[in-house]
Amino acid sequence: MDPDLSALDEFLREEGYDGYLVQAASDDSDQRYLSGFDAPDPFTTLHTPEGTHLLVSGLEYGRATKEARADSVAHSARVDAEADTRKSEDDDGTDSLADRTSTLAAFLDSHGVERVTTPYEFPLGAADGLRTHGVGVDADPEDRIERIRAVKTDEEVEHVRAAQKANEASMHAAEDLIRAADVGDDGVLRYEGETLTSERVKEEIEVALLREGCALDETIVACGADAADPHDRGSGPLRANEGIIVDIFPRSKTTKYHADMTRTFCKGEPSDTLREWYDLTHEALDAALDAVEPGVTGEAVHDAACDVYEEAGLPTLRSDPTTETGFIHSTGHGVGLDVHEKPRVAPDGEELESGHVITVEPGLYDPAVGGVRIEDIVVVTEDGHENLTEYPVEFVVE
Amino acid sequence: MDPDLSALDEFLREEGYDGYLVQAASDDSDQRYLSGFDAPDPFTTLHTPEGTHLLVSGLEYGRATKEARADSVAHSARVDAEADTRKSEDDDGTDSLADRTSTLAAFLDSHGVERVTTPYEFPLGAADGLRTHGVGVDADPEDRIERIRAVKTDEEVEHVRAAQKANEASMHAAEDLIRAADVGDDGVLRYEGETLTSERVKEEIEVALLREGCALDETIVACGADAADPHDRGSGPLRANEGIIVDIFPRSKTTKYHADMTRTFCKGEPSDTLREWYDLTHEALDAALDAVEPGVTGEAVHDAACDVYEEAGLPTLRSDPTTETGFIHSTGHGVGLDVHEKPRVAPDGEELESGHVITVEPGLYDPAVGGVRIEDIVVVTEDGHENLTEYPVEFVVE
Repeated sequence: MDPDLSALDEFLREEGYDGYLVQAASDDSDQRYLSGFDAPDPFTTLHTPEGTHLLVSGLEYGRATKEARADSVAHSARVDAEADTRKSEDDDGTDSLADRTSTLAAFLDSHGVERVTTPYEFPLGAADGLRTHGVGVDADPEDRIERIRAVKTDEEVEHVRAAQKANEASMHAAEDLIRAADVGDDGVLRYEGETLTSERVKEEIEVALLREGCALDETIVACGADAADPHDRGSGPLRANEGIIVDIFPRSKTTKYHADMTRTFCKGEPSDTLREWYDLTHEALDAALDAVEPGVTGEAVHDAACDVYEEAGLPTLRSDPTTETGFIHSTGHGVGLDVHEKPRVAPDGEELESGHVITVEPGLYDPAVGGVRIEDIVVVTEDGHENLTEYPVEFVVE
Repeated sequence: MDPDLSALDEFLREEGYDGYLVQAASDDSDQRYLSGFDAPDPFTTLHTPEGTHLLVSGLEYGRATKEARADSVAHSARVDAEADTRKSEDDDGTDSLADRTSTLAAFLDSHGVERVTTPYEFPLGAADGLRTHGVGVDADPEDRIERIRAVKTDEEVEHVRAAQKANEASMHAAEDLIRAADVGDDGVLRYEGETLTSERVKEEIEVALLREGCALDETIVACGADAADPHDRGSGPLRANEGIIVDIFPRSKTTKYHADMTRTFCKGEPSDTLREWYDLTHEALDAALDAVEPGVTGEAVHDAACDVYEEAGLPTLRSDPTTETGFIHSTGHGVGLDVHEKPRVAPDGEELESGHVITVEPGLYDPAVGGVRIEDIVVVTEDGHENLTEYPVEFVVE
């Protein structure tokens, strides 16, 4: 996949930067996107309007020359050998920022680069070290690479769709387990003679994902009061008549693209409040999805979900920025190489564009009631959006 | 686990810093270590000699107050509400570094903090933004938190030992599969009627690790010429009479500590050269292990392995910094919350201390021969070291 970096090149030329510099391992998605290279330890990518150049250790050199999407690959030991990167003679055994960046400075010099811009997250030590070598370094406050990454090619959309399909297989595995469980006298779910726990359901999810070629990030299977904290992963026995939030966000091992989906299940009879919350959340999901089209802002999509909740008299972070109950997170986020990336589907969320892939995931939370969340993933298309999620939206499993 | 941060506090006092500032998600191990908090999105930790203070989003606030090892937790929306963090009136819709750091600046101000030091990897955008707010920010070139993390408590050593035990179960699964395979007429391994591939063995490893409660990072199962590139993960059919490098580095899902182990197997008859390389590598492993004790440098351990190879006439990066064959990586690295961390067991490697947990992993590589690597993990003890690896060192599997 060749990314379209014309917007970046234009920015570099307009602002007088010689290049865009990234120093990170490929778990940093800007790095992976720009370099097309997968490496576990930090390496350097310099993108200029003329080409993309990598600086890697000897360990990665052979693989980088074969696999990276780069016009040239430099070997750090050779850069050291060719340039005068010796450390000061009175080296006291401690590092300085200048010492740590002498190879990088020589690499930039070899490309005639004197002034660069970087991601917001560029390592401070490297930036201040390069500055001592006379290189101009400015962090880009605008996250330009992430904004370019946000607009997916058709190929990238298919990567997300395939990951979501794998995700649906694992959601089926979770739902089937809850469905097959019995309810004990104490209200605790039992499966094949054992207490059905959050951990057991997660294991089933993880095995299903593994079979589908997805990496196993953390998974949320949270019941009752646990589910009232949107980031609680859940633990221990699952109980009847309570909301069980299952939120799965795997990454394809091959493509590295993510999926993301949430369903809330209830084994048995939900309380009237929980049932009302579920129906409201389904309504908020539909209202937010209805709003998704190019030119609409992420904020407007978020507002559509907030409207449903607030009209029902429930608090949101929009109506009360410090509330700890109600709708206490954003309506969604972009998904791609990162599971959370641009665009924001939240207050201040930017305009949606065709090719944006976003989640829509309203929810309600209160430790006294539990939690409910429903999440689909959609791609913004020229005339609206396409939902990449086929999984049904059903609350009570019998 | 309460980390011993007295060395950090002493440094802060001596150098006149009000605190040590980290902004990262908990996949950053300095962040996890300092905050004791596990969160998928970036948050802020301020450590001062008086206490540890977190700044988190509303989404993480509830969980942080319960789970983090912090003296106080601030809610970012409340910090905004209480401080004057409004953006400039003529905001043109774009972000500035100052805007992006106004909440962080208010948080530091609320703790009376005017000058901080940070990890080398601290986000440049945040640092330069804080500087516009008048906060002094210096990256620590010395990686102090990582150096503190390198010395493990007994509890941390047990976490690594447990992860290595799980790792051995997965290595057994891999070896058993290779052992059980048949050799086809074309020299390709076959198992249960199908071609035995790198991918198939990795799946077996991953399922075994999952059952042991470990997260599935990438795994190397590399045969023949693939194995000649130390970072090649391997793919496709496994063949008889070639070296098959199996390198597994899982993380415990509970403790987040890593293990790391490599074995090289050969199904059938290795060439004389490959056999010689294996024996030399076993010798280099023993020589390097023999050198491990407190007060010895990581460089001396690396030298012990290089000596064995160079005496046999094989190139190393020590004898030729640009060689692409022979012993082309470091002898080892620290292991803990990160799979690669301090101390270095490499050129310039620092003095080993009791409590350091390191790998020892010499190897030889040449596309014309293949690759061989053997890796154990050991803890430096007061009178030498203890090998945390019980897995046998055997090359030919029949």
